[in-house]
Amino acid sequence: MQQRKGDPFGTHRVIEPEGVLPQPALRLDSVSPLYANECLIDVERLNIDSASFVQIKEACEHDVDRVKEMIIKIITDRGKMHNPVTGSGGMLIGRVSQIGIEFPANGLQVGDQVATLVSLTLTPLLVEEIQHVNMNNGQISIKGKAMLFASCPFAILPDDLPESVSLAALDVCGAPAQVARLVKPDDTVVVLGAGGKSGLLSLAVAWQVAGEQGKVIAIESNPAACEVIRELGIAHEVQSVNAKQPLAVKGMVEVLTAGELADITVNCVNVPDTELSSILATRDGGTVYYFSTAVKFTAAALGAEGAGKDVQMMIGNGYTPGHAELTLQLLRDQPALKDIFYQRYQA
Amino acid sequence: MQQRKGDPFGTHRVIEPEGVLPQPALRLDSVSPLYANECLIDVERLNIDSASFVQIKEACEHDVDRVKEMIIKIITDRGKMHNPVTGSGGMLIGRVSQIGIEFPANGLQVGDQVATLVSLTLTPLLVEEIQHVNMNNGQISIKGKAMLFASCPFAILPDDLPESVSLAALDVCGAPAQVARLVKPDDTVVVLGAGGKSGLLSLAVAWQVAGEQGKVIAIESNPAACEVIRELGIAHEVQSVNAKQPLAVKGMVEVLTAGELADITVNCVNVPDTELSSILATRDGGTVYYFSTAVKFTAAALGAEGAGKDVQMMIGNGYTPGHAELTLQLLRDQPALKDIFYQRYQA
Repeated sequence: MQQRKGDPFGTHRVIEPEGVLPQPALRLDSVSPLYANECLIDVERLNIDSASFVQIKEACEHDVDRVKEMIIKIITDRGKMHNPVTGSGGMLIGRVSQIGIEFPANGLQVGDQVATLVSLTLTPLLVEEIQHVNMNNGQISIKGKAMLFASCPFAILPDDLPESVSLAALDVCGAPAQVARLVKPDDTVVVLGAGGKSGLLSLAVAWQVAGEQGKVIAIESNPAACEVIRELGIAHEVQSVNAKQPLAVKGMVEVLTAGELADITVNCVNVPDTELSSILATRDGGTVYYFSTAVKFTAAALGAEGAGKDVQMMIGNGYTPGHAELTLQLLRDQPALKDIFYQRYQA
Repeated sequence: MQQRKGDPFGTHRVIEPEGVLPQPALRLDSVSPLYANECLIDVERLNIDSASFVQIKEACEHDVDRVKEMIIKIITDRGKMHNPVTGSGGMLIGRVSQIGIEFPANGLQVGDQVATLVSLTLTPLLVEEIQHVNMNNGQISIKGKAMLFASCPFAILPDDLPESVSLAALDVCGAPAQVARLVKPDDTVVVLGAGGKSGLLSLAVAWQVAGEQGKVIAIESNPAACEVIRELGIAHEVQSVNAKQPLAVKGMVEVLTAGELADITVNCVNVPDTELSSILATRDGGTVYYFSTAVKFTAAALGAEGAGKDVQMMIGNGYTPGHAELTLQLLRDQPALKDIFYQRYQA
């Protein structure tokens, strides 16, 4: 069973098209037995990417049975939970059921509860049944199997946090980790889509790093989510503006910064057409960090050019060394923020 | 006629959807008379973006009459040359026929020949006829009218270069200008899709900046284009590898860099599915600069995460202050490179 060794990046499980890696592949083989350098996981829960879950819910008119069917169809068709419309996935948790003899286990043992820190768009997945869909937060209880390749980061879940909370936070742990690298003391930071989980974690880091002399501005369309941010006290300014309206966003940021605009804008909005708002909120020479998978490359590239804006635009990288630890520690250090995650995500 | 003043970003010409800027808009108004802060151009030539032109040619099975029809249909449907499949446009040249009294002209006069330095995807365009399609280089001679908004950069064409050569170079002038900023002396730089015009200009700048102690590696699928690069002498290594094959690209760069990989990888490939090749060619801590409009945001974001690669990924910004001058000067300084542009693009 474990004699064959696969490619560390998982190309041995790509069915079509040939020669590509698992992420862009149309279809993966989630049926063949475990390879010697893979790890088999009994999947307990999927955490569907926010952009993907919003799209699926809308396509299914918020009917939970149709949502279940659509998710099963995607996984069955593609051998992975890779939303063909948004191109995004999410992540999963489960228990290790088998460790290939050549898998880089780093102390991992059979029975450990783990979260995969790679997208579901490249994780071979076999679903037996969907037990429950949480229509509010996109967490799906399932019975199924997944394979982890040798190159894929994972995290053993901590004992001091509920698994649903860890899962929700780890799903977006690239965002706060990258924000921690980008933001400097005294910076003016705008977070768009600040009320979602990646937005809140990004705000919390920006608040720590930019400090008293800096300025952290939270933009969030939902007034209730604005209130949550105000109560957390992790932003100097909180404003309810629709991130799809670039001129409204620009106008608001101009007012709040006396025309200086942002040094860094972090885009965490889970709906399309917010590229230009991010660009126009940012000063010439500043940086836009796009974390949302709803972002379109050409809209950003051509939008900046069209507006004659000299901004650096970065594609959010879900991987940064130490990102899982940084994110879980952020929750432990900020009990009020942790409470929000408990309220929203505790199963 | 010129009494009304429009929005500097051109939102007054957006027909649908409401509230967006001209670039992401589905349809622009290219019919209404000139606004007071616009400039009217008698269009002479379009330079279709490479990703867009490849897609159009393939969809039309390389039939020049069908290509003409498809281009006219896109412009008529959308009020701009915005390819709905690739999301990209290109640029244009023409002569100034009218300058609104509030347009920031900076010395521009009626009759001047100009190139617009913003994408055709946000430029209102009215086409009367297509006179000629150059199936090799995507330059289209047309009779038509375009409007320039107050925020849109433009360049008066120089006297010492043929207009078709200036147009070809200015279309991609963001690439060499950004490479000039990113590359440092002694860097190892990989350019993917090195044989096209943005690739050649990027190579030329990398060669100047990385210098003798650095290493400039050109990857280009077309062997004839590889030979051109070798003759120009602007790369330390030139290899024919298909950029759609990430493991082949990674293997080649590993061999050429003794396993160190690239500090900076510049992606100038005009076909899809090259995101992972760029990521795998780059060292941890290095930077991928995506200039090609064929790049997909999620494929890059999730691909880096899936491979556990800690790379900075940047979205190419077509605008950088001084980008037009830098690019034209590069051609003047490197006569052999200028000759290639004459061979390929002189009308």
